[in-house]
Amino acid sequence: MSRLSLNQWTTRRWSVAEAVDGCVRHGVEAIGLWRQDVTAQGLAETVKLVADAGLRVSSLCRGGFLTSGGRQALDDNRRAIDEAAELGAACLVMVVGGLPGVVPGEPLGTISRDLPAARERVAEALAELAPYAGERGVRLALEPLHPMYCADRAVLSTLGQALDLAEPHPPEQVGVVVDTFHVWWDPQVMAQIARAAGRIASYQVCDFLSPLPADVLLGRGVMGDGVIDFAPLTGAVAEAGYTGDIEVEIFNADVWAADPDEVLALVKARFGELVGG
Amino acid sequence: MSRLSLNQWTTRRWSVAEAVDGCVRHGVEAIGLWRQDVTAQGLAETVKLVADAGLRVSSLCRGGFLTSGGRQALDDNRRAIDEAAELGAACLVMVVGGLPGVVPGEPLGTISRDLPAARERVAEALAELAPYAGERGVRLALEPLHPMYCADRAVLSTLGQALDLAEPHPPEQVGVVVDTFHVWWDPQVMAQIARAAGRIASYQVCDFLSPLPADVLLGRGVMGDGVIDFAPLTGAVAEAGYTGDIEVEIFNADVWAADPDEVLALVKARFGELVGG
Repeated sequence: MSRLSLNQWTTRRWSVAEAVDGCVRHGVEAIGLWRQDVTAQGLAETVKLVADAGLRVSSLCRGGFLTSGGRQALDDNRRAIDEAAELGAACLVMVVGGLPGVVPGEPLGTISRDLPAARERVAEALAELAPYAGERGVRLALEPLHPMYCADRAVLSTLGQALDLAEPHPPEQVGVVVDTFHVWWDPQVMAQIARAAGRIASYQVCDFLSPLPADVLLGRGVMGDGVIDFAPLTGAVAEAGYTGDIEVEIFNADVWAADPDEVLALVKARFGELVGG
Repeated sequence: MSRLSLNQWTTRRWSVAEAVDGCVRHGVEAIGLWRQDVTAQGLAETVKLVADAGLRVSSLCRGGFLTSGGRQALDDNRRAIDEAAELGAACLVMVVGGLPGVVPGEPLGTISRDLPAARERVAEALAELAPYAGERGVRLALEPLHPMYCADRAVLSTLGQALDLAEPHPPEQVGVVVDTFHVWWDPQVMAQIARAAGRIASYQVCDFLSPLPADVLLGRGVMGDGVIDFAPLTGAVAEAGYTGDIEVEIFNADVWAADPDEVLALVKARFGELVGG
């Protein structure tokens, strides 16, 4: 239980200050933060809140959005790296972006359908960002997203692909995220988790709901409410040598509508029953 | 254009007789049939309708549903094989089924979360069915479905996994389906299509819509309405030696609500512009 980390968006109504306080009250020792909430709270104040509470920052969400190219995206990622360094975050989660021009939830306008080119652009941007992160002691964590988000959120779709992308870079600069929701279906998941030894920067857990809700982004459930068998995945991640925090990240309309204290109590109970670690 | 095949559910309001007639009127030379519609029309009558119209039957949809085990599923698949033989279908499309107990669109009840076991059950059932299909000259076509359907429709999620499953069996007994909607996102798709040489039993096309509709089963669009770049996939399938029909299969509420003749005209136009082959 000491490895449980609360990703702030599991209790999305809570500000950074409220989430830090919630962690302390519930005996949770680590927190995953989101950039926009840190900005709203103030970066310096967040650093102080987290330090005073004695919490570890298991991740900062998120950098990425690299597929459309341009200096602006790189500059914003450098700022995200600086923030992660300031917060002492174990990693900066990278959601690489979808096909150029595709906007989540919006009808298609002018887009690029060249998926290999979009993927290549991610590799190029990473080559620019990894040394910058390395100089600041920040680890970029490439997050493969479920293939249903390939068009609109991340052209990085499997753990194997994330490891291929990470390979040219030192493991302390570029690691990967293993998120049960995104990888549970993959016939190669066990082999790729084993291959990820030394590269696992974050292990995130939540369940995959069936049926999916109308907005598939919100198809994440509290562990036990969906179809995922967590123990083998947790076991494989441990076998690969990962000893860091295990972050619970749930995007779900019902969870967000519920009392955050009740959510955190339920998350703790289910984590103990189902996730292990 | 001579390789275009109309999957009957693209014009779902049409009976078999109407779809056959539609193909003739629009100069489409092949049709993909669905078992329940064939049953409604009568098997013998369907055989005669198709023969009189001079159409090829590019596929019969569908066998499968093998993950829950039991004799009943095997018996039903043997009947499906018999029907495919009677129709002279180029293949019987196999949708292997989701996790035992998971019902599409329904809240979860008692289910199995053991995904490797469900996948193993498919391999076992296939070992029983392949020789039966071989004796009747029917080719089983394993269809990997998009990973978003792993829980509720098919634990077969990638082309690579389908080829692994097919490998123990002669290519004329067990092939695979390459469906653009299901495989376009896969970082390994080009390598796996090349590996599929001699195993491609069906090439199906439709687009992947973004955003997805509330019912993700209906996220299939007319070519050009979504995010898929068809030419490279068609090229790879041709390079792998596939010269059979190219079936257009679109599950989409708007398409189903439209005049089937207009749908077929649009499908023909977009096929010519975008799919090639």
